[in-house]
Amino acid sequence: MALQQRTGTSLILRLELDQSVGAFGQLTRAIGEAGGDIVAVDVIHVTKNTAIRDVTVQAFDRVHGERIVQALKELPGVRVVNVSDRTFLLHLGGKISIQPKSPVKNRDDLSRVYTPDVARVCTAIQEDPAKAFQLTIKRNTVAIVTDGTAVLGLGDIGPAGAIPVMEGKAMLFKQFADVDAFPICLDTKDTDEIVRIVKAIAPTFGGINLEDISSPRCFEIEDRLRAELDIPVFHDDQHGTAVVLLAGLLNATKLIGKKLEQLQVVVTGIGAAGVACTKILLAAGVKNVIGVDRQGVLTRSVNYDNPIWQWYAQNTNPYEVRGGLQEAIAGADVFIGLSGPGVLTVDHLKKMARDPIVFAMANPVPEIDPEEAEPYVRVLATGRSDYPNQINNVLCFPGIFRGALDCRAKTINEEMKLAAARAIASIVTDDELNEQYIVPSVFNKKISRAVSQAVIDAAIATGVARRERPDYTQSN
Amino acid sequence: MALQQRTGTSLILRLELDQSVGAFGQLTRAIGEAGGDIVAVDVIHVTKNTAIRDVTVQAFDRVHGERIVQALKELPGVRVVNVSDRTFLLHLGGKISIQPKSPVKNRDDLSRVYTPDVARVCTAIQEDPAKAFQLTIKRNTVAIVTDGTAVLGLGDIGPAGAIPVMEGKAMLFKQFADVDAFPICLDTKDTDEIVRIVKAIAPTFGGINLEDISSPRCFEIEDRLRAELDIPVFHDDQHGTAVVLLAGLLNATKLIGKKLEQLQVVVTGIGAAGVACTKILLAAGVKNVIGVDRQGVLTRSVNYDNPIWQWYAQNTNPYEVRGGLQEAIAGADVFIGLSGPGVLTVDHLKKMARDPIVFAMANPVPEIDPEEAEPYVRVLATGRSDYPNQINNVLCFPGIFRGALDCRAKTINEEMKLAAARAIASIVTDDELNEQYIVPSVFNKKISRAVSQAVIDAAIATGVARRERPDYTQSN
Repeated sequence: MALQQRTGTSLILRLELDQSVGAFGQLTRAIGEAGGDIVAVDVIHVTKNTAIRDVTVQAFDRVHGERIVQALKELPGVRVVNVSDRTFLLHLGGKISIQPKSPVKNRDDLSRVYTPDVARVCTAIQEDPAKAFQLTIKRNTVAIVTDGTAVLGLGDIGPAGAIPVMEGKAMLFKQFADVDAFPICLDTKDTDEIVRIVKAIAPTFGGINLEDISSPRCFEIEDRLRAELDIPVFHDDQHGTAVVLLAGLLNATKLIGKKLEQLQVVVTGIGAAGVACTKILLAAGVKNVIGVDRQGVLTRSVNYDNPIWQWYAQNTNPYEVRGGLQEAIAGADVFIGLSGPGVLTVDHLKKMARDPIVFAMANPVPEIDPEEAEPYVRVLATGRSDYPNQINNVLCFPGIFRGALDCRAKTINEEMKLAAARAIASIVTDDELNEQYIVPSVFNKKISRAVSQAVIDAAIATGVARRERPDYTQSN
Repeated sequence: MALQQRTGTSLILRLELDQSVGAFGQLTRAIGEAGGDIVAVDVIHVTKNTAIRDVTVQAFDRVHGERIVQALKELPGVRVVNVSDRTFLLHLGGKISIQPKSPVKNRDDLSRVYTPDVARVCTAIQEDPAKAFQLTIKRNTVAIVTDGTAVLGLGDIGPAGAIPVMEGKAMLFKQFADVDAFPICLDTKDTDEIVRIVKAIAPTFGGINLEDISSPRCFEIEDRLRAELDIPVFHDDQHGTAVVLLAGLLNATKLIGKKLEQLQVVVTGIGAAGVACTKILLAAGVKNVIGVDRQGVLTRSVNYDNPIWQWYAQNTNPYEVRGGLQEAIAGADVFIGLSGPGVLTVDHLKKMARDPIVFAMANPVPEIDPEEAEPYVRVLATGRSDYPNQINNVLCFPGIFRGALDCRAKTINEEMKLAAARAIASIVTDDELNEQYIVPSVFNKKISRAVSQAVIDAAIATGVARRERPDYTQSN
């Protein structure tokens, strides 16, 4: 597919123009003088004294756009009602809709999808609740649940501010894996209440995708929901990141000929994603992971108030390295950054083992500037789309839920996540594999199918699937 | 539109046939002998020993269909895997889907609808939460909330059993008024918890449609949510019924030339719908409503434990009629039944004033058999689609929410409901109005537009609209 070129930015200005003073001529002149191109003019509403017009203007960039708007605000007889750019226009009225799968055009349709015939379907489910998977949207629907406390890099912006992200995620679920997903943005930060709410709304859903919930509450919420619900609960910020990281690491180590068992891996930022990445590495066979947070290396000789760190220290750092990143990085094969900009320096890179693998995933600014790091590393991956090897959760969550829904999995377990990581890695063939290409593009159409099939196989093998496909001899 | 004829019922039988014994020949013969017509045969899966086929069979009715299936079950070499009829097939996998409004085909799309550009939209909402109405699905999305305790006539069938009804309702919202509606089926019956949950999930929604929640909890849940949320909360079983009833009564009284102020109205069944119908009648100007429940006429000289009945007795029955339906119905102009079959008799009808108006709305069996009542009444309405004058909530809820969403109403107040009732009544012109046609067909395309516009006007007039249309001079 062609990468669309973004030449400048397009603004739509809604302007109220005084009819009597020839304001429109002044307006076009002012836009021209400010360096903007008028692309289109639409008349929206005219009264005796004023006219409302939408004027589409092309500018070089956002700053230039703001300069044009400022110039118009100073014109007499012109009032700037609103300024929209393409991104905002795409969000107008939201990004998803709910559609009937069949029309309701006459009495016959109505009596089947609603009363009176729907009563038979309701009764069938009442008698056997598992039939909800067969006869309702539960079969294909995931709740994207957030409390808006850790949205993108924006932090605690509240549930309303989080909606656009969850809608975007719902679009990706549909586009990449035909999963129906609906945003549930909760106006509460109380752990107990979130657990209760998600349990209460669960009947309609075949899976729960937790999203952008701040640490450490996200651990307890996920753990409790996993224990108490019989549908998959998956905190994407933790496990999606972990799965894609492992996919990248599998290919990076294959490229340079190292084995997972022999790696020394340093992880900076022991929050939700750092813990999940570490857990999947250990499950995949890595023996020596060293965690570093603000206060230094986590080590089992220290007692930590944070129960997650306490667990972490007991289960990592087998050689009891102490100190900070300086000490941990000496001789390391892999650096995994989930911390912040500036954490990693060239000095650190120089201390690593041969063929350093660096995942600098802090967003939007990585732990080290990619240009600066490049001469000193063999493989570099970031969270950004403007460098090679983007570690992007979109590689994982659509396919992993597709697989879980298709086999009606009770949970998404470690084996299913490992299978997903291996499936993602396998999309990159041996011929294609190189330093700039350890993970496939998110637009590669093979991914979701490969991931879902691998997840189904793992679910069946571990006994958490409630349906094996294809099984034509079962009525469900 | 053509009323589709339902000639019999269509079954799809999934059969596993033994390959070796010529079972297919026996099968077709058995279906023919049982009086069924084979419409189609699809081969689904074949192994060495067995074949799975889907055989579509036309039968006269359900009982006949069951006889055919029974005949097949007795055949050697045939195993009936599953039997589906058209209604069940329509429900497979659920009846609604979630669709992106624009495709995500390349990096540029992805960066606008998701990270990084979505962050600007999130921040705009964080700074001004009212912008959620503009930039998210909140603008057009309603939650259909139930706890599954009073589903259709089925009673407390639980949240999973309720999903097909809520999906059906979501289809109707979309089909009739382009409202996006999503089912929230709650696995709790606790009033406090339901209130907390609905408040917590409210950020994503522009309105809450409460549905099939049993009385008396439905009153408290609605009252508290109305007080605590700034979006409309509307218990359709109460108010939708009340609005459509009033629409029908307005036209029925117009037809026979009686005034609301002079009517004596008897209501049987003082539950959720009965109370709501009474309230809207009082708001519309009816002075003399007499409520009757199992223990007889509600009257202010008695103290009731049920606070709703206490309110009801204080605000109705101005002439303090005592006794039962016998006493209440004497000289009554209108009977409104929200009770059960057999409550109303011909003897009762004979005691009513001239030109009796009877709304016998118990479902599926009305308070009196329509054929039996017909000689004694002037206007008869029921809840059924197979008689004239169906009092169907579908006439109300799509348009009333369309209007409320379009003007961003904070609530749906009594004036808006009255306006909706008048708008529904107005669809039936003076030329068309007759005893068999006091409410329009649910498929009349004028309804939702008329209702929504009337609701918007009433919302603006009563100061609960947050947006007046068309207003081209506002940025929201």
